[in-house]
Amino acid sequence: MLHLASASAEGWAERALAELDALLLDHAHCEKKAASTALSMIFRYPEHACLAVPMSELAREELRHFEQVVALIRARGGEFCRQKPSPYAAELMTAVRKAPAAKLLDTLLCCALIEARSCERMQMIARALAARGADDPAHPDHDLFALYDGLLASEARHHATYVELARRCVEIDESSLQARLAELAAHEAAILASSPGSPVRMHT
Amino acid sequence: MLHLASASAEGWAERALAELDALLLDHAHCEKKAASTALSMIFRYPEHACLAVPMSELAREELRHFEQVVALIRARGGEFCRQKPSPYAAELMTAVRKAPAAKLLDTLLCCALIEARSCERMQMIARALAARGADDPAHPDHDLFALYDGLLASEARHHATYVELARRCVEIDESSLQARLAELAAHEAAILASSPGSPVRMHT
Repeated sequence: MLHLASASAEGWAERALAELDALLLDHAHCEKKAASTALSMIFRYPEHACLAVPMSELAREELRHFEQVVALIRARGGEFCRQKPSPYAAELMTAVRKAPAAKLLDTLLCCALIEARSCERMQMIARALAARGADDPAHPDHDLFALYDGLLASEARHHATYVELARRCVEIDESSLQARLAELAAHEAAILASSPGSPVRMHT
Repeated sequence: MLHLASASAEGWAERALAELDALLLDHAHCEKKAASTALSMIFRYPEHACLAVPMSELAREELRHFEQVVALIRARGGEFCRQKPSPYAAELMTAVRKAPAAKLLDTLLCCALIEARSCERMQMIARALAARGADDPAHPDHDLFALYDGLLASEARHHATYVELARRCVEIDESSLQARLAELAAHEAAILASSPGSPVRMHT
């Protein structure tokens, strides 16, 4: 359903939770970046009116998530601050082709894959927390479990939104779209496979 | 309350309503641009954590307004599309000083003034529509009246938010802040006074 070409390494969530402050900060930056990317699509493609409202709605949802993550960082005694950006998204976007229609298609599909990877990773985090008993409202990490368990459905929905927008905004038959999505998914999996895995990041 | 150094010309709203399609399209672009500016403040000033959540909330609200205006454009048979940007905001921002603290202060106060001018203009539009009877729910332009009558309070609140953020994020005494706000308001009024007034724009 998520069109990913690889599964994340087992144990990723345990390693990420061992550096929870870094994970949450990266997550906050990811939500902010996702909102910015969605908003930039409205700026870049005003002639694709079908993008305007879905991208605006998606940006609003990402900003709401950003606020939720910042609230959790603060509840744990931390603060939102500057972070060295992860190269993941920029490396993924190097696969975007230059010709206008191909560029729009590839950009939307890369966004779809970022959302898919977020969804997979959030599910891993939610499961790892549940295995520790954090699905129990009385557990001290229940707020963390509730955040990830609540967000992963949104990420799956955003993945579907981006694929559907690619379908509606670009003139392309379904099999060509799926073939390009598979190529980009392989590229995404290769980026993950070559990533050092440290410092902890939502996507590497 | 809005700290503006000049009132818009009487009759501005009537002239704007005579080019309603252009006004609504510009309004949609203004809301999108306002969301983008708020979001960019989170990117530019992560070390000012006090900005993060208020700017995110404000960006969400601007995007909600963007969607409302696009819905109204469509209800009237039009469509959101590209538009030649108004020089207003860029001209206003030429007054922003370079030194870091002054830059942050000036940027926040310029944003405050843009919101203030939006509020004044929306109130003029709502009054002009009410004078035509559009405050009556049975009037064919009631949706337009309801939009502007509903939004102007948000713009006033956004103005206050930006001034309050300037107060909280920049170390400056209140009289210096008010003096700088008055200087920038005079600059804003001069831009408006020298604007050709055509094509119709929310801010010129």
